[in-house]
Amino acid sequence: MSRDIIVQKFGGTSVADTDKIKNVANTILRERNLGHDVVVVVSAMGHTTDHLVKMAKEIAPNPSGREMDMLLSTGEGISIALLAMAIQAAGGDAVSMNAMQVGIITENVHTKARIVDIKTERIKNYLNQGKVVVIAGFQGVTPDGEITTLGRGGSDTSAVALAAALEAARCDIYTDVEGVYTTDPRLVPTASRLDMVSYEEMLELARVGANVLHPRAVETAKMFKVPLRVRSSFKLENLGTLIVGVEDMELQKAVTGVASDSSQLRIVVCDVPDIPGRAALIFSRLSDANISVDMIIQSYARKVENTNDIAFTIDKADLDKTLKTLDDMKDEIGASRFQVDDSIAMVSIVGAGMIDRPGIAALMFNTLGNQGINIKMISTSEIKISCLVDELDADKAVIALHKAFNLDCDEIAEVKGTLPDV
Amino acid sequence: MSRDIIVQKFGGTSVADTDKIKNVANTILRERNLGHDVVVVVSAMGHTTDHLVKMAKEIAPNPSGREMDMLLSTGEGISIALLAMAIQAAGGDAVSMNAMQVGIITENVHTKARIVDIKTERIKNYLNQGKVVVIAGFQGVTPDGEITTLGRGGSDTSAVALAAALEAARCDIYTDVEGVYTTDPRLVPTASRLDMVSYEEMLELARVGANVLHPRAVETAKMFKVPLRVRSSFKLENLGTLIVGVEDMELQKAVTGVASDSSQLRIVVCDVPDIPGRAALIFSRLSDANISVDMIIQSYARKVENTNDIAFTIDKADLDKTLKTLDDMKDEIGASRFQVDDSIAMVSIVGAGMIDRPGIAALMFNTLGNQGINIKMISTSEIKISCLVDELDADKAVIALHKAFNLDCDEIAEVKGTLPDV
Repeated sequence: MSRDIIVQKFGGTSVADTDKIKNVANTILRERNLGHDVVVVVSAMGHTTDHLVKMAKEIAPNPSGREMDMLLSTGEGISIALLAMAIQAAGGDAVSMNAMQVGIITENVHTKARIVDIKTERIKNYLNQGKVVVIAGFQGVTPDGEITTLGRGGSDTSAVALAAALEAARCDIYTDVEGVYTTDPRLVPTASRLDMVSYEEMLELARVGANVLHPRAVETAKMFKVPLRVRSSFKLENLGTLIVGVEDMELQKAVTGVASDSSQLRIVVCDVPDIPGRAALIFSRLSDANISVDMIIQSYARKVENTNDIAFTIDKADLDKTLKTLDDMKDEIGASRFQVDDSIAMVSIVGAGMIDRPGIAALMFNTLGNQGINIKMISTSEIKISCLVDELDADKAVIALHKAFNLDCDEIAEVKGTLPDV
Repeated sequence: MSRDIIVQKFGGTSVADTDKIKNVANTILRERNLGHDVVVVVSAMGHTTDHLVKMAKEIAPNPSGREMDMLLSTGEGISIALLAMAIQAAGGDAVSMNAMQVGIITENVHTKARIVDIKTERIKNYLNQGKVVVIAGFQGVTPDGEITTLGRGGSDTSAVALAAALEAARCDIYTDVEGVYTTDPRLVPTASRLDMVSYEEMLELARVGANVLHPRAVETAKMFKVPLRVRSSFKLENLGTLIVGVEDMELQKAVTGVASDSSQLRIVVCDVPDIPGRAALIFSRLSDANISVDMIIQSYARKVENTNDIAFTIDKADLDKTLKTLDDMKDEIGASRFQVDDSIAMVSIVGAGMIDRPGIAALMFNTLGNQGINIKMISTSEIKISCLVDELDADKAVIALHKAFNLDCDEIAEVKGTLPDV
């Protein structure tokens, strides 16, 4: 009878030095002693990647992606070997494997490749020999044997993809927080940890500023229905937050979490003639320039007859590129000017339970209004409502919304499964 | 028409920091601009290996060989990527490859594997595309995809083996000395650099203490007739020393070099009964314990009737292991006691030309005798004579021999091709 496979992922801070690596080895053997087969995915140690990038920049201002991938992949080579040694020293049996040895096949793109296939034969052979298999996260290999890396959120994605390929019972993401919270506990001390959240909610929370898990890893987990647990490396008695499909949720709360994100800014393209195709032109050009646009609002015929103002939000880092793209097409659009507002924040409420419950949006807008907070833009998805507000109002908005939706810790028990009366 | 391939090897001190890596990139492009295809073999940067070993020891007192190889192989992964970037930044085209990507196939032994095969197809494809190919030295891969390392002298051996597989015109070993000298220039300031030396002489010089090249690399070069050049990373105008087959030597000097080695000690097994098979027993047990014995002398019937003293030299590092092995078999041998002499040095003269020239040994013994130096043991090969002397006499012996065989720099021109009259 084959045993359950658990995939455990440890990030760079969990393996930052040799003492921490020994602790991680004990955490792994603890899971193994529960009777599971264990596959471990690990990132590069602490500041290794920064150190490698610094050397590369000293040598070349724009190093080639292929050589950056070759360079960065060494980071996990170090951590997998040391972690396997630590497991052996603690009395366990372990073997390390890099992406090339496993066969974590990616597309032929450097610095941000996507995984297309994972070979499981060698891993399963090692598991059958009773070994813990320690695998390098963040890296892959093309069918031609070129080394690639997966880009941001790479190690989380490696872990989830391996869990999917191995049909693991669960993928545990060990991190320095205790799980997923209703909002940022540094801002709202009464924020409570969620025992369970759906992939969909987690995705929205991840997108709007909850930095626990990269959306890419959550998407992969959702696609392959991998139960995902976010838990603390340091408080093992705490089971953290389990992320599962909506259909597996025990309770559906209307609102699961509140988040704010100040990483964007707003651009208003003023007085665009109201002719079909103008908006399409703007956003296809921005897309060609590889600029991601989040919220978009078009307001009809505001100041000048038969013109629109078109407003949208972008990442602050993309400002220069965006302004250049817009300037190049200014005459073509016929806009009068571009206005940049960089002191904005997006405040969002997320909850799978809001789908068939009315009044959630109204409660959100009322709550912000009662605080005297002006809403600049609104965007909604099935399980999320986001409001663009002044950056200075963001914290106040989060605290008020967290309270309004009864997410504060002391109250959470009694509202489980019920709804605020709105 | 296919161009000549030159293999260049750079050690850890040549790539110790990013500035040095940029210098190496220029040295490589200089060779490439002479119209050659260039394959580069590089070691880990400066103290990288020490740092990795230190972390491993913090985690496990006896880390497994497999995981040590996984760990150490990351060192060259860093240097090949950075060097390829540096070549690109200097205007060249380059690509890095680790041993797995090349297919440097070794036997399935960790920390000291021997190369059994090298695939050349991917390297040649890259060369045909006009690229400099930068390859990780010191590492290999088993047919099953396990990462191995080659042990001491590994990167030199990688370079020579690649040169052999690629049928390169030459293998250049860049190092921090200017070539092979008649003796250690720090001891004898008039020591002269040899323009040419044979593999056989280089092997003997390497074995008896000239630390320029590992014997293993020289043996590989000899086996595959790879012309080998030892030259300075810092003085490129100096062509260093070319190491070739005896048949390709322009001149045969009787004595090419003088060297001394204090890394051994002498053990005398006293009063062994003169019965056939006793010596064989001793040395087969030492061999079973993986102890290398260099010189052996058996003196007949010295103090006690029908007994021998058997003396031999071993590496100082093997003393404890050797004494334990001897103690375990003391009754079996019937020896009275073991005597350890750890203040010895082996002084050697080496020269392919001594084969058919008489009087060389006599001049050596006379020279030492005239200096009042007592010879404790003597061993000879076809092209080498070694004398065991008191460690305190070693420097004096080297200086006197270097002078007696007319190797001093000012005189070397006039004795070329002639012999001292002995």
